[in-house]
Amino acid sequence: MSESTLVSLDDFEAGAQSVLSPEIRDFIAGGSGSELTLRANRQALDAVVVYPRMLAGALSGTEVTLLNTPMSMPVGVAPMAYQRMAHPDGEIAMAEAAHQAGIPMMLSALSSSPVEEVARTGVAVWFQLYWLAERRRLEQLIERAETAGSAALVVTVDVPVLGRRLRDVRNQFALPTPVVAANLAAGSSSTAHLSRAGESAMAVHTRELFGPPLTWADLEWLRSRTSLPLAVKGILDPRDAGRAVAIGADAVVVSNHGGRQLDGAPASIAALPGVAAEVGQQCQVLLDSGIRSGMDVLRALALGADGVLVGRPLLWALALDGAAGVRHALSLLSTEVHESLILAGCADPAAARELRTSWGSCCG
Amino acid sequence: MSESTLVSLDDFEAGAQSVLSPEIRDFIAGGSGSELTLRANRQALDAVVVYPRMLAGALSGTEVTLLNTPMSMPVGVAPMAYQRMAHPDGEIAMAEAAHQAGIPMMLSALSSSPVEEVARTGVAVWFQLYWLAERRRLEQLIERAETAGSAALVVTVDVPVLGRRLRDVRNQFALPTPVVAANLAAGSSSTAHLSRAGESAMAVHTRELFGPPLTWADLEWLRSRTSLPLAVKGILDPRDAGRAVAIGADAVVVSNHGGRQLDGAPASIAALPGVAAEVGQQCQVLLDSGIRSGMDVLRALALGADGVLVGRPLLWALALDGAAGVRHALSLLSTEVHESLILAGCADPAAARELRTSWGSCCG
Amino acid sequence: MSESTLVSLDDFEAGAQSVLSPEIRDFIAGGSGSELTLRANRQALDAVVVYPRMLAGALSGTEVTLLNTPMSMPVGVAPMAYQRMAHPDGEIAMAEAAHQAGIPMMLSALSSSPVEEVARTGVAVWFQLYWLAERRRLEQLIERAETAGSAALVVTVDVPVLGRRLRDVRNQFALPTPVVAANLAAGSSSTAHLSRAGESAMAVHTRELFGPPLTWADLEWLRSRTSLPLAVKGILDPRDAGRAVAIGADAVVVSNHGGRQLDGAPASIAALPGVAAEVGQQCQVLLDSGIRSGMDVLRALALGADGVLVGRPLLWALALDGAAGVRHALSLLSTEVHESLILAGCADPAAARELRTSWGSCCG
Amino acid sequence: MSESTLVSLDDFEAGAQSVLSPEIRDFIAGGSGSELTLRANRQALDAVVVYPRMLAGALSGTEVTLLNTPMSMPVGVAPMAYQRMAHPDGEIAMAEAAHQAGIPMMLSALSSSPVEEVARTGVAVWFQLYWLAERRRLEQLIERAETAGSAALVVTVDVPVLGRRLRDVRNQFALPTPVVAANLAAGSSSTAHLSRAGESAMAVHTRELFGPPLTWADLEWLRSRTSLPLAVKGILDPRDAGRAVAIGADAVVVSNHGGRQLDGAPASIAALPGVAAEVGQQCQVLLDSGIRSGMDVLRALALGADGVLVGRPLLWALALDGAAGVRHALSLLSTEVHESLILAGCADPAAARELRTSWGSCCG
Repeated sequence: MSESTLVSLDDFEAGAQSVLSPEIRDFIAGGSGSELTLRANRQALDAVVVYPRMLAGALSGTEVTLLNTPMSMPVGVAPMAYQRMAHPDGEIAMAEAAHQAGIPMMLSALSSSPVEEVARTGVAVWFQLYWLAERRRLEQLIERAETAGSAALVVTVDVPVLGRRLRDVRNQFALPTPVVAANLAAGSSSTAHLSRAGESAMAVHTRELFGPPLTWADLEWLRSRTSLPLAVKGILDPRDAGRAVAIGADAVVVSNHGGRQLDGAPASIAALPGVAAEVGQQCQVLLDSGIRSGMDVLRALALGADGVLVGRPLLWALALDGAAGVRHALSLLSTEVHESLILAGCADPAAARELRTSWGSCCG
Repeated sequence: MSESTLVSLDDFEAGAQSVLSPEIRDFIAGGSGSELTLRANRQALDAVVVYPRMLAGALSGTEVTLLNTPMSMPVGVAPMAYQRMAHPDGEIAMAEAAHQAGIPMMLSALSSSPVEEVARTGVAVWFQLYWLAERRRLEQLIERAETAGSAALVVTVDVPVLGRRLRDVRNQFALPTPVVAANLAAGSSSTAHLSRAGESAMAVHTRELFGPPLTWADLEWLRSRTSLPLAVKGILDPRDAGRAVAIGADAVVVSNHGGRQLDGAPASIAALPGVAAEVGQQCQVLLDSGIRSGMDVLRALALGADGVLVGRPLLWALALDGAAGVRHALSLLSTEVHESLILAGCADPAAARELRTSWGSCCG
Repeated sequence: MSESTLVSLDDFEAGAQSVLSPEIRDFIAGGSGSELTLRANRQALDAVVVYPRMLAGALSGTEVTLLNTPMSMPVGVAPMAYQRMAHPDGEIAMAEAAHQAGIPMMLSALSSSPVEEVARTGVAVWFQLYWLAERRRLEQLIERAETAGSAALVVTVDVPVLGRRLRDVRNQFALPTPVVAANLAAGSSSTAHLSRAGESAMAVHTRELFGPPLTWADLEWLRSRTSLPLAVKGILDPRDAGRAVAIGADAVVVSNHGGRQLDGAPASIAALPGVAAEVGQQCQVLLDSGIRSGMDVLRALALGADGVLVGRPLLWALALDGAAGVRHALSLLSTEVHESLILAGCADPAAARELRTSWGSCCG
Repeated sequence: MSESTLVSLDDFEAGAQSVLSPEIRDFIAGGSGSELTLRANRQALDAVVVYPRMLAGALSGTEVTLLNTPMSMPVGVAPMAYQRMAHPDGEIAMAEAAHQAGIPMMLSALSSSPVEEVARTGVAVWFQLYWLAERRRLEQLIERAETAGSAALVVTVDVPVLGRRLRDVRNQFALPTPVVAANLAAGSSSTAHLSRAGESAMAVHTRELFGPPLTWADLEWLRSRTSLPLAVKGILDPRDAGRAVAIGADAVVVSNHGGRQLDGAPASIAALPGVAAEVGQQCQVLLDSGIRSGMDVLRALALGADGVLVGRPLLWALALDGAAGVRHALSLLSTEVHESLILAGCADPAAARELRTSWGSCCG
């Protein structure tokens, strides 16, 4: 593992194969069902063609401000549960590397490190909420996130039930004992730790933990409950994006949950233009699911995103070498973002929206 | 074979390989000609992208009523001939499992178990008719089906001649001796049992058994002959769907006979939108050919179907473990249907029609 | 090699591999350049989806009359040079089998059997002309064909120069000594027999034998010169089809010469709709290049052809078993044509034009 | 290596594998990023279907005049840096072969042979400029190119930074010591020779050598500075082509730099129609990136190009056998260009623009 072998984000996944158990690798890498949406995320991104402009002058910088957070580039860390499964330093190492790279970290409600410790690294925390069954616990969680100094709240709306991830079912996957949901019941064991046949322990735990289906009314309550910037994550249909704006969301995250929820849902990048056309003038639009390079960031910007989240590659980097691994991955990504914008002739990230795009290599 | 290895419908096919002879496996799995349509069924279903809705409230249930039959989910058992080839319990086991799952069974005219015994399991029988050459025998068959308590009649219209299934021709496939068409000439041997070179015995038998080409006038006669709900199975062209409605059909089944008739015919799911647009307001629209998951059910509903039929996966399940195998397969499918509807934000199966869809992962 | 192993036209190609030298197999099978057009012929045919009609009544028959020739089905033998390379009985055996099947044989100007002997089998000969450099020899050839009783003349217009067939160049392929162009200089050797590096002997011979580029004026001359039905073979652009009609052609053959001339030209079936739209009301439209089954015949009919020519599969059949091989192949094809028309609900070949078609399995 | 094994341009790449080190092969063959654009160049060219015309008369010739340079065919040598890496005779051998073939050579600013020596071979030199950081050195370079008798100047505008070519990064590739940029600092070593981890030495050298981002104002200055014909190379967006015409460019070169700059940029051939539509009436339009055959030349002409540049195949030919190798490659290409135009029924290269084209083999 060195600077000369880890030269693109994909290299980290290959490198991490030898340091993780097959079950954990599968939990991280897998998608739901036949993994059609998982694969579609990459296929659709690869199919986005961007027409670069020439002689357009210098790049002034890659900085943006999203959800009131100044960022060194239009990239944040995607929320990923239980990062201590990948590396003992877990979310703390991830946060340190993100902070040094000047980007925010979306912290999962199912973080295996307490939000307070994560915030202490100095990283801008965008706290990701799952909607707990008990309203009291939910309120406590929100308050805890706010008190810890989170910069924004993010509600994930695409998990009314956990997607059926067949790798985990086959592996009878359960959470390793020492890893717990630190913001929910630190130190205690849960159904997530109990392996069973025919069902993922994670799915059982999710069912137990989450409440009755979340509604737009719940989101209105939350909007009135917090003054933090609020993002709604997991939007694919433009009509839902419009609803999110109507209840006062500051951002929507176009996402199919990394291909882990509805298998057969569109690639995030394919859903982006519709959402951006609907609400791009009224709120910020983020995107995740499949981003693997600076060129992917450019693709998303060109199709209407204000920024993106990167997930799995950073988890592989964390597994490989803790904070140093993530730092190296983010450094590569930053270089790629710079170079992609320069090669495309963009003065800044916002200029990418003026680029001509097409799908696929034919037909001009 | 256990709950943790059979976690999707596709697993049953893999599992059944070792319990069936190659000739029977080929008979079940094969299609006609180059099997282009057989493969297209899957490719086209995989290409249907469904945009899930978020925060739309709870699923009220998956129940529907099709052909006057209340069903636990919008799924029935597709008609498959000679199920005793797959397992000694044949159609009886299939019917028991369907009954327990709360879904109807479309029973083939070429059933290897008598319709009376099948009906005795309690399952709702949708009796599938081939048009016998002798009108008298046909009338007897209809009367027998009615007397046995069938809940509906289904006429298969896409077999004016049996599709040329090269696997069967190469295997010189013939029906195993102990398996007979129980509703036609129980106990007696037929040309279907006589292996020959260059032709499938099944094709010879079909040619012998079936009459001159069926016409719309024949169908009108049948409509006047029975008061049972009537479905016309094997429709791909919207003009034919319109004709079926005109003669008083209660449902059409969009089907290419599992890729076993005209090789080069469209994937069923590709033909669905045209048929649904033509007659969806006037009769019920069912679909078969390639359905392998709850997501596939959702795809069909989203494109205008009221329900689907599942075939081969249930036959593999039957081969593997009789009624228990089919029960397990239907239980998985039921879970998938539930979860797909929940993940797509549908309050019930009918709501799926409001979902946005696209073909392929690109171009939003 | 038996009735039960040769069950589709593709089987003959596989079977013939062991009875021909690699050089001759390559000469027959190969295309020009990267063989893109060769492959496109099959890919495009496989992509043609035909929507069958149901309950449309019986098939009255497959007979058609093309170029004034009554035929048992809308299929003729494509012109293929030097058939004695494949089998000692060459064109005579091919003609006998075609005659017995009730279909015409397009006989190549570069036939290795004299036209008189071919005609003597009773087959309807459609004599295919290349435009010889010497007008006197050309006139003699036409007269010879007419005198022998040819039923039609066909001018091939897509060989202003022979396509660069790399397999032949690599093999330094030359015509085996005993095989000669029997209608041109029976018994004598030619440059086609002289192997050389960097160029196919066939290309050299073609260059020598053929005249300055053929023009529409030449075709007008020919039209005035003969009273036989006249077909123009090798048309892909509708504008050329219009010109052919204007000079009085009775038929055009949409063809890319089996992928052996301009590599990068369209698949014949892809060019068919444009040509049929342009001239389908004014002359007959035939098609060759890639036809391998009765379903392919149906595809061509549905897209506007009046008939098709089949080439390579019959040459493989000839190689395998002489006239008996070709008879078996044509018998299979006839069965397939019948069954495809029946399954599609066509009363006769002309009815296929009313079928709905689409390209590819998606998008209805 | 002989006339009978090297029968298409692709054969030279295969042949050259054994005579070059893996690092140099990778430097020549590689693209940037995931090499999507590198592959798209070929895929898109292969997808261009051209409808040949028949009976259109003889080919009068393949000659064209581009950038005031009379040429035997509409093909020039693409600019490729450091050709002595491939063969000791480098650019001199390339120039000799190009001269003998009657075509111009675009000579890279990073040539490993002095422009004066190249010009002495008699070849028409189109001198390719990179924009050096120091304006004084740039002026000297232009003057040197003019004095040496260059026939045209070409400014490459798509390298504001070198594309990230992962093969070179992984190989820690650096320029072999004896090879130098002969027109910049002949005989002296540079950062291009210093291997380092995590970055290609070529990228470092480029960053050092090139100035602040080139602008349209710089190009205007150059236009006023020289009276030679001026081409702008690296245009993909039609808007940039319009700008180039506005500042007085005589030609634009539609190019993605052989897939070596922005990975995700369109295939050149896919970008061509848009550029040709925008400026084809006002300036000449050239194209490079992926041309491998006479058919590819025809494709580009049919889609609006006046000529093309060929790169890598000639470098592989050079590696294999110096000037003789390139002569053989150009001779093959010339034959292919002739035959493609003849087969397509074009009287001259300009006539190709009247051909009908489509993308892909389906849908007519």
